[in-house]
Amino acid sequence: MTSGVDTDTQTTGGWLTRDELDAARERLPIVYVDAVPVQLDASGTLQCVGLLLRASGKGGISRSLVSGRVLYHERIRAALLRHLEKDLGPLALPRIPASPQPFTVAEYFPTPGVTPFHDPRQHAVSLAYVVPVEGDCQPADDALELSWFTPDEARSEAVLAEMTGGQGTLLLQALAHLGF
Amino acid sequence: MTSGVDTDTQTTGGWLTRDELDAARERLPIVYVDAVPVQLDASGTLQCVGLLLRASGKGGISRSLVSGRVLYHERIRAALLRHLEKDLGPLALPRIPASPQPFTVAEYFPTPGVTPFHDPRQHAVSLAYVVPVEGDCQPADDALELSWFTPDEARSEAVLAEMTGGQGTLLLQALAHLGF
Amino acid sequence: MTSGVDTDTQTTGGWLTRDELDAARERLPIVYVDAVPVQLDASGTLQCVGLLLRASGKGGISRSLVSGRVLYHERIRAALLRHLEKDLGPLALPRIPASPQPFTVAEYFPTPGVTPFHDPRQHAVSLAYVVPVEGDCQPADDALELSWFTPDEARSEAVLAEMTGGQGTLLLQALAHLGF
Amino acid sequence: MTSGVDTDTQTTGGWLTRDELDAARERLPIVYVDAVPVQLDASGTLQCVGLLLRASGKGGISRSLVSGRVLYHERIRAALLRHLEKDLGPLALPRIPASPQPFTVAEYFPTPGVTPFHDPRQHAVSLAYVVPVEGDCQPADDALELSWFTPDEARSEAVLAEMTGGQGTLLLQALAHLGF
Repeated sequence: MTSGVDTDTQTTGGWLTRDELDAARERLPIVYVDAVPVQLDASGTLQCVGLLLRASGKGGISRSLVSGRVLYHERIRAALLRHLEKDLGPLALPRIPASPQPFTVAEYFPTPGVTPFHDPRQHAVSLAYVVPVEGDCQPADDALELSWFTPDEARSEAVLAEMTGGQGTLLLQALAHLGF
Repeated sequence: MTSGVDTDTQTTGGWLTRDELDAARERLPIVYVDAVPVQLDASGTLQCVGLLLRASGKGGISRSLVSGRVLYHERIRAALLRHLEKDLGPLALPRIPASPQPFTVAEYFPTPGVTPFHDPRQHAVSLAYVVPVEGDCQPADDALELSWFTPDEARSEAVLAEMTGGQGTLLLQALAHLGF
Repeated sequence: MTSGVDTDTQTTGGWLTRDELDAARERLPIVYVDAVPVQLDASGTLQCVGLLLRASGKGGISRSLVSGRVLYHERIRAALLRHLEKDLGPLALPRIPASPQPFTVAEYFPTPGVTPFHDPRQHAVSLAYVVPVEGDCQPADDALELSWFTPDEARSEAVLAEMTGGQGTLLLQALAHLGF
Repeated sequence: MTSGVDTDTQTTGGWLTRDELDAARERLPIVYVDAVPVQLDASGTLQCVGLLLRASGKGGISRSLVSGRVLYHERIRAALLRHLEKDLGPLALPRIPASPQPFTVAEYFPTPGVTPFHDPRQHAVSLAYVVPVEGDCQPADDALELSWFTPDEARSEAVLAEMTGGQGTLLLQALAHLGF
């Protein structure tokens, strides 16, 4: 959920000022989407999972899923497409799922420990989808890099330790949903 | 989604004033839950579906699912339980699903026709669950009556015609998810 | 499930003779897959559903999903790919789902009325998946034609009346899963 | 999948002799169900997971899920109920899921390594469900004991090491599906 700040600055436009959004975030759960970018072989078997590398506020780095807010009057699938294109570049060719059923719903709470998911800025209810990506990904926006990991690499301690806010748990849930 | 007005008056309390909520509703998608109350036999087979009868604003009646807002810092499963107890009474014994995965997500738009779901008051993103009910249901709050319908009755033209805002479509999606 | 006879003649090879398969079909539930071919737009929204046109035994025609048996030591996703390539041709480019979770399980019973699904030859337990198709489809094998229908056309009385064995119900369940 | 031998001896009755079943198992995938027994609180939150303790063939012990074959002309939900009652006793009050959609499908192969799931006796395609249990469980049949584990205990190395055939992976997939 580290992409939220930049995202909102760029995209809210006529929807909500930064102050208004901040106020709403203290009062209402905010609708989010989380996308797990994957590469599949011809039989649909998972080959690798894509994680964004970002500079974290404190000079370190973190790895994250594609994540962001759903805007007023925006379809969930449009929000998925928008955030995927923003983070993976315009040639990524994401295959947005046909069904609105997410594989899970991640409830990010401002208070740590209520759920496995934590976002200090807000209470976000995030619909999580696995999204096959077939084109060329080029990290865009504030992402430094997009790295692909095999399922075994993705669930390694080293990779999970670089994820924050519970996204490591969400990644493991996605892998489980895919049979890994 | 007809229960929203009364719900919010009663429950927002310290969260959001009516005016603030109205303002937010014009700017942000609001997180909702929809619950389809069902009765099952010992093998889990659907026996009947519960629909609330309400007086609609125009002097007519309408039938609806259990539906309402998720509050700030409220778990989805707590919101489900709260709305089910409010509408079905304290002895309904709803069996809240163990998994956070909804059977679908209904996107209610203030503009008709964008999706099958419409709510003139707001853009609501509603997580929809089937909830088995094992106790005694007593319509509470603003519901006049709770009626149980067999799957065939529930999908009849007569019943579907009494549902508004696309909830008839959501009911059919629930029945399909249950194998009907 | 009309494709089973031809399928098995061609593919059982070293697995099972026709007589042995017939004997097993009277004693064991048989593992099947059902695939609903779909075309999506860039945001994943359903554009149309593909149905096969076949000559039915009695001189009539019927429309059907892509359906067939899972062989001994065959992965479900390999069976999906095999049946889709057989029925839609080698250039169809089906996107086999990444997750093994089917949208439903259709239980075809030899006795009509036990479930909505009926197959006079056998008790088949069929895992049902929606499969986006991105290439050129050319009806192959015993299919006369592949036709694409919008969601509204697909759920029309006329189309559903041409489907047998409960596949019309399965088609409606697939549409419901996709938000229609 | 360790319960299969005893199960089939007891239940096949008029369906299939032991020899015939053995022959079929070398030729056809066999339809199975796996059930993960769980205890939930009033809001549906997972409290604990039930695992059966069995004597394994080699003098050791193993822990397993409730698992068994679907018989000819048997509904999946009837098979779930039968295996749960056999393993947990007649007073367990399992709540069979209303929807036929499993949370995953485990493909047990006779050859290790094809999938995470392995059964030396057969190729089994197992539909996996989470089943809340509300009554008193008494290990029955060949199970020595039923033990309840918190989610953290259930995913511990110690417990997973006592599970065979990939059921540890299936248990983790169930926990992930439940948000853990």
